[in-house]
Amino acid sequence: MGLKDRVKIAKAASITLAATTSQQRNDALRAVKEALIAGKAKAFEANELDVKAAEEQGLGKSVIKRLRFDEKKLTGVIDGIDQLISLPDPIGKTLLARQLDEGLNLYRISCPIGVIGMIFESRPDALVQISTLCLKSGNCVVLKGGSETARTNKALFDIINDAATKAGLPDGSLIQIEERSQVNEMLECTGLIDLIIPRGSNSFVQYIMSHTLIPVMGHADGVCHVYVDKDADIETALKVALDAKTQYTSVCNACETFLINREIAGEFIPRFASMMKEAGVKFHGNKEFIDTLKSLAPDNSECELMEDSAYHTEYLDYECSCKLVSDVDEAIAHINEFGSHHSDSIISTNKETIDHFMEMTDSANVMSNCSTRFSDGFRYGFGAEVGISTSKLHARGPVGLEGLMTYKYKLFGEGHIVGDYASGTKEFHFKDLN
Amino acid sequence: MGLKDRVKIAKAASITLAATTSQQRNDALRAVKEALIAGKAKAFEANELDVKAAEEQGLGKSVIKRLRFDEKKLTGVIDGIDQLISLPDPIGKTLLARQLDEGLNLYRISCPIGVIGMIFESRPDALVQISTLCLKSGNCVVLKGGSETARTNKALFDIINDAATKAGLPDGSLIQIEERSQVNEMLECTGLIDLIIPRGSNSFVQYIMSHTLIPVMGHADGVCHVYVDKDADIETALKVALDAKTQYTSVCNACETFLINREIAGEFIPRFASMMKEAGVKFHGNKEFIDTLKSLAPDNSECELMEDSAYHTEYLDYECSCKLVSDVDEAIAHINEFGSHHSDSIISTNKETIDHFMEMTDSANVMSNCSTRFSDGFRYGFGAEVGISTSKLHARGPVGLEGLMTYKYKLFGEGHIVGDYASGTKEFHFKDLN
Repeated sequence: MGLKDRVKIAKAASITLAATTSQQRNDALRAVKEALIAGKAKAFEANELDVKAAEEQGLGKSVIKRLRFDEKKLTGVIDGIDQLISLPDPIGKTLLARQLDEGLNLYRISCPIGVIGMIFESRPDALVQISTLCLKSGNCVVLKGGSETARTNKALFDIINDAATKAGLPDGSLIQIEERSQVNEMLECTGLIDLIIPRGSNSFVQYIMSHTLIPVMGHADGVCHVYVDKDADIETALKVALDAKTQYTSVCNACETFLINREIAGEFIPRFASMMKEAGVKFHGNKEFIDTLKSLAPDNSECELMEDSAYHTEYLDYECSCKLVSDVDEAIAHINEFGSHHSDSIISTNKETIDHFMEMTDSANVMSNCSTRFSDGFRYGFGAEVGISTSKLHARGPVGLEGLMTYKYKLFGEGHIVGDYASGTKEFHFKDLN
Repeated sequence: MGLKDRVKIAKAASITLAATTSQQRNDALRAVKEALIAGKAKAFEANELDVKAAEEQGLGKSVIKRLRFDEKKLTGVIDGIDQLISLPDPIGKTLLARQLDEGLNLYRISCPIGVIGMIFESRPDALVQISTLCLKSGNCVVLKGGSETARTNKALFDIINDAATKAGLPDGSLIQIEERSQVNEMLECTGLIDLIIPRGSNSFVQYIMSHTLIPVMGHADGVCHVYVDKDADIETALKVALDAKTQYTSVCNACETFLINREIAGEFIPRFASMMKEAGVKFHGNKEFIDTLKSLAPDNSECELMEDSAYHTEYLDYECSCKLVSDVDEAIAHINEFGSHHSDSIISTNKETIDHFMEMTDSANVMSNCSTRFSDGFRYGFGAEVGISTSKLHARGPVGLEGLMTYKYKLFGEGHIVGDYASGTKEFHFKDLN
């Protein structure tokens, strides 16, 4: 069966899945959890082969670490499933209840989106998180994981799919695709797949966004900033700068650009330059920054000259851009122009300046006196996340269960017709119920 | 100045506009209202020319009626502005407040989307409604109205724009484009325009959706259904059927297809056929329906044979498709396959059947015992609407103020870094605030 036909089945299943009770879906999650524990040997075995192949291909240590699926990762995903089970049912919430007129009652009720297409990196725990998030929220899902963990993905998918259907969820609710070529088939499932969530490199996400008519949620790049205000506490600034840049360099919410207020440069830059050099971070900057660095931190003044237009660079590595600014407004303007509206932080002790920054910076996540690295579904307490959105439509920022829901309007009448209201025979009498 | 440069200015203005107070925006709306009253002669005069030109072109009566902007329409839009002023401010609502750990507090705060691109039909009152909705919600907007009312649009836009900027809202917040060619320029403003809302014909909306990378909200077609259940009250069924089909045929929520339960056909069809004939509605149906019609209503049995695949037809006229079904499940399956997920109604006295239909029908608006024509922002009590969305992302159904809002996460820390949580030195302690 071709992918489109399988997705058609999922589309039909999505209606049944949406109508299951919270208990049915939680029971299925419990069954999935037990099946993962019972079948772990199979998953670990498959993962051994994936890891071996990756090592033979000479993939880096940090990549291998991400590919690995072991007892520790299993414990993590099991904890995640327990957390999901404990969360309230997102389906069937009454978001609005309003009497339009005598006997004519309107309700806005939350319901699943339908069929989600999810493309994600080579991280087996992500497969478990995403599929269980979809089951909890009553959504069908087409899963395409990274090819480096194809064997592990298959083993995990079989365990989850088998347990979920045995627990009574509709057949065909979960689909796994393994070939890269099937991604293009997926992009053509307009009207069948309701939402695509791609995770991966900037160019990959851009490709997805421009090759499908299906709505896409996610982010292409993460050019995040830390602005060190004139009223910054220097210790806080140094601590946050180091964490935002180096705690995990290859992720979207790592800091790429430091904006430094000229008034605090003399105090901040010498220690900043020495700290970053020690951490192995390479500087890029405009002429003014280079001159300032040379005069303030002559021993740590290595810095590559960059054009102003290059301030949109996402390094995802031990490198960063630096720039001096006059005030918070220049910082805001820079971030709104060169950033990616993802996560941006201000370091300041001035409450007014902080509030101004957080109001005017047009980003999904704005922070004060803490690291940009905090923008993440788990750290925000949403449980697992399906991704981070920099779009302003639907969900913005880290997207958990809520982002997988939509709503429908239910209108209950007693023979009401519009003609009566158009002619003036009847009038609306809006009244919120409850 | 090219459109892109003007939109760049609007993009910058959108940040300032978003930071205005509720009072500033309400004052501006009051100024707009007064300016419309004071400048009405100019608008009426421009409208006279538009109407004359339309009449000379031989446009139909109902079109002319839509083009007209007179005292009555003015009163309507003024009422709308008063209603908007009285609504609570949608900006700055705290949607979530959570302590992540001691001193690390997360807030989800509502804010405007930014710059909206709005393309709408030749209806001058729509221009006023849309621009004032955008001002209330703190969004900048690029307006492209139908060319048949170009003169009226220009007069109204000048009045509104002038009043809003004089009242202190940022210059360049409102942009009007008049040339059709500029629509394509608009579609290329990726990263500057945050959302495009097109209203118009199916093919026009399809064109917009497939020619831009900017998110699009709206609906292309409206293939709406009325299902007459075996437990229907016949009088209700007849009354609703007539209203849904004929109260206003050229709109998206008019009924296009009637699904009739075989068990009630004998009772319903004779009266239905005679009523529809009298109303001038032409039938299309499959062979079974034609045969049934001939035997049950020989005097009113005119019906054009249609292929099953044609059940997705949107007539927007005094025509409809008809089909017999065995039960509510067959009706649901038909609607989910051939409908456009817009507005669908069941006529039944059986509560269980109604609930099942409203649960399983995958449409933005599901109704029972009332007309599909009710799905509309005004009738739902949302005030004016910018359009109706059949997408499941962001806003679904009639879209009012709420659909023009997004949110951002604000995270306030005291030097918090992710490294401490990754290493286990610190742990998150999620606690909802308030």
